[in-house]
Amino acid sequence: MTQTQLARENIITTEMEQAAAYEDLAPEFIREGLANGTIIIPKNINHEFPARAIGKGLITKINANIGTSEVSCNLPAEISKLNTCLKFGAHSVMDLSTGGDLSAIRKKLLTSSSIMFGTVPIYAVATKLFREEKDIADMVAEELFSEIELQAEQGVDFITVHCGITKSSIKTLDSVARLMGVVSRGGSILVDWIKKTGNENPLYEYYDRLLEIAEKYDVTISLGDGLRPGSLFDASDKPQISELLILGELVQRAQERGVQVMVEGPGHIPLNEIEMNVRLQKSICNNAPFYVLGPLVTDIAPGYDHITGAIGGALATSFGTDFLCYVTPSEHLCLPNEDDVKQGIIASRIAAHSGDIIKGVKNARKADDSISKARRELNWPEIFKHAIDPELARKRKEETQTEGEDYCSMCGSLCAVKINRGEKR
Amino acid sequence: MTQTQLARENIITTEMEQAAAYEDLAPEFIREGLANGTIIIPKNINHEFPARAIGKGLITKINANIGTSEVSCNLPAEISKLNTCLKFGAHSVMDLSTGGDLSAIRKKLLTSSSIMFGTVPIYAVATKLFREEKDIADMVAEELFSEIELQAEQGVDFITVHCGITKSSIKTLDSVARLMGVVSRGGSILVDWIKKTGNENPLYEYYDRLLEIAEKYDVTISLGDGLRPGSLFDASDKPQISELLILGELVQRAQERGVQVMVEGPGHIPLNEIEMNVRLQKSICNNAPFYVLGPLVTDIAPGYDHITGAIGGALATSFGTDFLCYVTPSEHLCLPNEDDVKQGIIASRIAAHSGDIIKGVKNARKADDSISKARRELNWPEIFKHAIDPELARKRKEETQTEGEDYCSMCGSLCAVKINRGEKR
Repeated sequence: MTQTQLARENIITTEMEQAAAYEDLAPEFIREGLANGTIIIPKNINHEFPARAIGKGLITKINANIGTSEVSCNLPAEISKLNTCLKFGAHSVMDLSTGGDLSAIRKKLLTSSSIMFGTVPIYAVATKLFREEKDIADMVAEELFSEIELQAEQGVDFITVHCGITKSSIKTLDSVARLMGVVSRGGSILVDWIKKTGNENPLYEYYDRLLEIAEKYDVTISLGDGLRPGSLFDASDKPQISELLILGELVQRAQERGVQVMVEGPGHIPLNEIEMNVRLQKSICNNAPFYVLGPLVTDIAPGYDHITGAIGGALATSFGTDFLCYVTPSEHLCLPNEDDVKQGIIASRIAAHSGDIIKGVKNARKADDSISKARRELNWPEIFKHAIDPELARKRKEETQTEGEDYCSMCGSLCAVKINRGEKR
Repeated sequence: MTQTQLARENIITTEMEQAAAYEDLAPEFIREGLANGTIIIPKNINHEFPARAIGKGLITKINANIGTSEVSCNLPAEISKLNTCLKFGAHSVMDLSTGGDLSAIRKKLLTSSSIMFGTVPIYAVATKLFREEKDIADMVAEELFSEIELQAEQGVDFITVHCGITKSSIKTLDSVARLMGVVSRGGSILVDWIKKTGNENPLYEYYDRLLEIAEKYDVTISLGDGLRPGSLFDASDKPQISELLILGELVQRAQERGVQVMVEGPGHIPLNEIEMNVRLQKSICNNAPFYVLGPLVTDIAPGYDHITGAIGGALATSFGTDFLCYVTPSEHLCLPNEDDVKQGIIASRIAAHSGDIIKGVKNARKADDSISKARRELNWPEIFKHAIDPELARKRKEETQTEGEDYCSMCGSLCAVKINRGEKR
């Protein structure tokens, strides 16, 4: 049985207890949220790790994408990235590998991951086609479901599936003049396949089969936003919202069956449309957890998209987004390296935390008050302790320290904290 | 005569024309804003450079702080920082030096600066006292005004003066339990001086004298927020708002006299109080331009405060803030180095631009649409051209390029843009 099904039977599981302890909340709070679909615990029955929950009333979680690509395939490097994810506090990791032996890489990363582990199964199918020099049109529905079942059996905790790309949402897509077209890789594959074969998206047509696999392994379905906008010009347009409406129906079917489900969201969105996007998802998707990619509030900052993503992510969090997918400085440019992974995680954690402070997450501001108190006391060890990256903070302070520990190179004697104390100078 | 006085005489100056051309607006728009106080052109009659305007309806400008400190004093390093400011698009620079020969450093930096140049004159007075091992209480009002006149004569375009620290605002300060007390250096000096001497703040008591100097050289008065909150705990509290009310009166007096004036704002502010802070300043201060320090939306990220500042700055901009003071990764830790200056400028530019896109700044989204169009075409030279940091974007792409130019190491063949084109693979 899935965690949702167990919650509906009024059973509090070990997973619910672990998740509740992490949040300093009562297990019953988690159970209730699971039962009504506002909370999920993405955890495959074949993957052992401390359970975490995502959803309403909880700390906003952050995901880091790692994985090989066709032109950059180095398993030890990906394992280092995974360790960076663990060290810097990502709550989940997605393996988006498309280079090398995908199944072996996934298995290795998954068994090394003590956090939630997600994938996009269609990448494996498309990669196989590409390697065989076949066209996307040659993809057979059966392959897709076999791949999903294989990954579920391996222990993947959540999978992105672009079920909302349908003949009907493609019609809407073709009716508007988009600047960037389809920027989701999974989305673009399915659009291409549907257009070339004339058939309906198997992930939509045979959605029950997908739910069956998800139920069997308690895999969480992450309904991908294949038609998300890839530029501000395309934000909140008809294709995006048409797809969201379909995802709303699919959320309902998953929830009715007791399959855990969340919804993915955009993308490139201007600042003043973020609130609407979050509230609309909540309204259309029966308050299922919302998993947002960014959003990026400007298109002009390749090399710094962890910052544009942090701006959008903070705002999205404050309006009720539950799960942030990180964006790294390498976005739009190249595969992230280990430092990109770190920068992306820290930026996302800042965004999530800034939003959590004001959206009613328990004790969210405790760390802020602790570090401020330490600042007032010029208690540097305490400042480092509460800092988001203690190592870096200590390094910057110490490498510029020429006087006593209570001096910093910015203000020297002209320090407001010292002047506040009215110390005789 | 000041630009404001000239505007009120219906005269369009060269400065107004230069500022208007930069914005692609009619000079009359700038003249009108100057006349009613919603626009300023900080430009001392003794400083030659292309004039820029700050205020309502204009591109949000950004300021970078540089300058020596007691424990880190290296003029060539500060000149390199200034060049970094010019290269990466800061609109103004503030010299906050407190180490070395302050007057000589200021002169050198000012003559090298082809952008607006600001200072905090009380730093020079306090530094002198500290060097003479005197107490802040020994400061004489006359010294402060002489220093201001000296800097005005040197060509400083705008000065931060903490005129809102008064006996009355200190009373309010003492009535609340703040976590961080006073974090403004200028503010803390004046609080200390008033408490020790029992006298009123000379910058408030003799405000007309300040206005006289400002009028003579057309120096813009930047009314400092000496009681700004230095932690989320202290945000939007009574002392902060008491000071703002005083600044509102002082704005009126400056505007009545035709002296250019803007108002500085916080500080450490949670996400959901930023809108109120901006709207309150506009309401209380007769829509004078608002110059914001951050705001920082969490206290926990020393080492990454350019990101917390970008989140707050983007939001503040979107609600009508006109001028952002950058925050660098070194904030709260040490004096910024050259890379910190660069990172701070880029983060602030991202914040300002993200806000400008939605607050009705002319052509603000043009660069976004251009880079997105280039992305759709996989036209990398065009992508780099419109990127906020062309050098970095090119470097990241090229150092990971193993295949043809239209490949990137993230997606390889599995590229949504290529799949969109329906290319045969």
